Amino acid sequence: MNQTLASRLTALARIATDLSVDAVALVPGPNFTAALGHPFMSHERPFLLVVPARGEPAALVPNLELRSWDLVGFSGAVFDWRDQDGYDAAFAALLDHLGISSLAVEGQVMRVFVHHALKTAQPDLRIIDGETAISGLRIVKSDDDIAALRAAIAISERALERTLAGIRPGQSETQIEQALIQALFAEGAEDQAFHPIVAAGDGSARPHAKARTDYAVRPGDALLFDFGARKHGFAADITRTVFLGHASDEGRAVYDTVLAANRKGHEITRAGITAHEIDDAVTGVLEASPYADRIRTKTGHGLGRDVHEAPYIMRGNHQVLQAGTVFTNEPGLYKTGSFGVRIEDDILVTETGCESLTTFPTELMVLPC
Amino acid sequence: MNQTLASRLTALARIATDLSVDAVALVPGPNFTAALGHPFMSHERPFLLVVPARGEPAALVPNLELRSWDLVGFSGAVFDWRDQDGYDAAFAALLDHLGISSLAVEGQVMRVFVHHALKTAQPDLRIIDGETAISGLRIVKSDDDIAALRAAIAISERALERTLAGIRPGQSETQIEQALIQALFAEGAEDQAFHPIVAAGDGSARPHAKARTDYAVRPGDALLFDFGARKHGFAADITRTVFLGHASDEGRAVYDTVLAANRKGHEITRAGITAHEIDDAVTGVLEASPYADRIRTKTGHGLGRDVHEAPYIMRGNHQVLQAGTVFTNEPGLYKTGSFGVRIEDDILVTETGCESLTTFPTELMVLPC
Repeated sequence: MNQTLASRLTALARIATDLSVDAVALVPGPNFTAALGHPFMSHERPFLLVVPARGEPAALVPNLELRSWDLVGFSGAVFDWRDQDGYDAAFAALLDHLGISSLAVEGQVMRVFVHHALKTAQPDLRIIDGETAISGLRIVKSDDDIAALRAAIAISERALERTLAGIRPGQSETQIEQALIQALFAEGAEDQAFHPIVAAGDGSARPHAKARTDYAVRPGDALLFDFGARKHGFAADITRTVFLGHASDEGRAVYDTVLAANRKGHEITRAGITAHEIDDAVTGVLEASPYADRIRTKTGHGLGRDVHEAPYIMRGNHQVLQAGTVFTNEPGLYKTGSFGVRIEDDILVTETGCESLTTFPTELMVLPC
Repeated sequence: MNQTLASRLTALARIATDLSVDAVALVPGPNFTAALGHPFMSHERPFLLVVPARGEPAALVPNLELRSWDLVGFSGAVFDWRDQDGYDAAFAALLDHLGISSLAVEGQVMRVFVHHALKTAQPDLRIIDGETAISGLRIVKSDDDIAALRAAIAISERALERTLAGIRPGQSETQIEQALIQALFAEGAEDQAFHPIVAAGDGSARPHAKARTDYAVRPGDALLFDFGARKHGFAADITRTVFLGHASDEGRAVYDTVLAANRKGHEITRAGITAHEIDDAVTGVLEASPYADRIRTKTGHGLGRDVHEAPYIMRGNHQVLQAGTVFTNEPGLYKTGSFGVRIEDDILVTETGCESLTTFPTELMVLPC
């Protein structure tokens, strides 16, 4: 096994020890990719890496993935299974080989059918949700991780600039969305980090709006873009809200409030602050405004291989942020049936403060039309 | 509640009765979208629709989704929760309201953290995997579904044609992949159905290969494309393998074998046949060839809102196919370290036979170079 893989597996073994369980199990997803250094798909086929607190790791691999699995350089036992035979025997053999009585899994990633297969093979296996500890290994980013995030963000910002330049009254939300997606790939994205949100007018008041084919943008509309490129496996996540033609007095006042909240997040972030303290300060700005009833979400979330990952920037989360953590600072205000404003930056925590990896201007922008 | 939504919820209630459980639960994914007629994201936030065998459905909705949820026209009880407060109280209130003792869930979709939240709120709740029955509601496609699939496939085939026309020796797999992705969006895709597989030479021998930046395609290479557009929520899934410059005798012989297997699938498909019989016939062609040791996968899978869904076309699955079912017919042969060939069509089962929704030629194609 190569050194890097071995050290990543050792880190997972330490988590098993910390959680007082016999082993940790990963399934395809960001932790799996980070641990193995290779992306895998799984769909309907169970695929499992098990790292015990002591002893050799083992894996359950769909037969058709074996040739890709060879690229990983994994030296532990491998239990493969073919579609025609089903996977019950492979789970039984894996658990028999491991001889464990407790297992921590990724609650946000593992699906119930894998949980059921584990319990079927070994009914007395105790399964706990180790999501926080396992994903916790990815919170502090390496230099390579940060370089990948910068690349993803640079692509995203160029794509937004290109998209904004092409917006005209009368276009539908979906037309603008398609222009944004094409711009992302034209600028070098290897994938979208997630399906973008492109919402205008009353649509912008829905935090997770879906672009409409039958809504034509018009002067005075708020236009909200929440989107990101994926590059080298890492995700950008950026939101900007612009106005088309002109902004109303209310639009400007709300925008200024959200921008003040966003800036507050930049000001107070430094290594040693807690997620709670950031949300409290940022949301506090919104609460002190005349628009407190338009708050719908927490301040943000960690960002890396996953678009939404730890640490979640919300009150009640007293996790201390370390230098190298990247999170989204995305306050917003949403007036149902009317309009919403969200401004989202991707922030790198440093020892002395923070750096905004997003550099697209946040000043109120009115598109000509 | 509108008629369509009401009838879809009634179908889910009937599944609860059939499975002898008190209720069925759905989480965001293809079944959720099909039932509610609206797509939702969930990420780290639990989001649940529960349809009891008798009585009114209820839902657990993240607070920031409420304005999107309003669009659904759902008239049952809704238990929302905010990030700051967590979701334990909402789960407790939902289960207290429902008064159920058993629940069928989608094993392939629901993640373990939701399973844990249900069990925390009600430790004696019996949870079974109802995936087969729940997703079974989507096997037979409506006319609208089929029209959406045709649209997704037409976009995909135009994108492939455009991509093939631009291939030159010396391009990397990732360059060709990017060209394919851009062509999909240029042709009108609303999204990719999945991240495409673009694999050349020895890479094509890995059924789930990842495009390489450092492999330059060269004359004699097999080039395998497995990809699809998403349109109106439905996914295309097409594979074609072409040769660059020239094909070796072995390449031609293997291609002919895979094509014969693919054609066998078209020949024998009709309403009333089982999934087992199709895989047996298609894989039988491969097994009768000199290349039987290169078989890695089953014949295919159902196709619709999900790229991989029921029915799985494999031996041992004695499910009878009904008219209106759409599945992939994708035999392949993979010689490790050398090359692979796969030919994948999307097939609609009819009363008297079948129709291939994919119409891109399957005859051996040698690209000029």
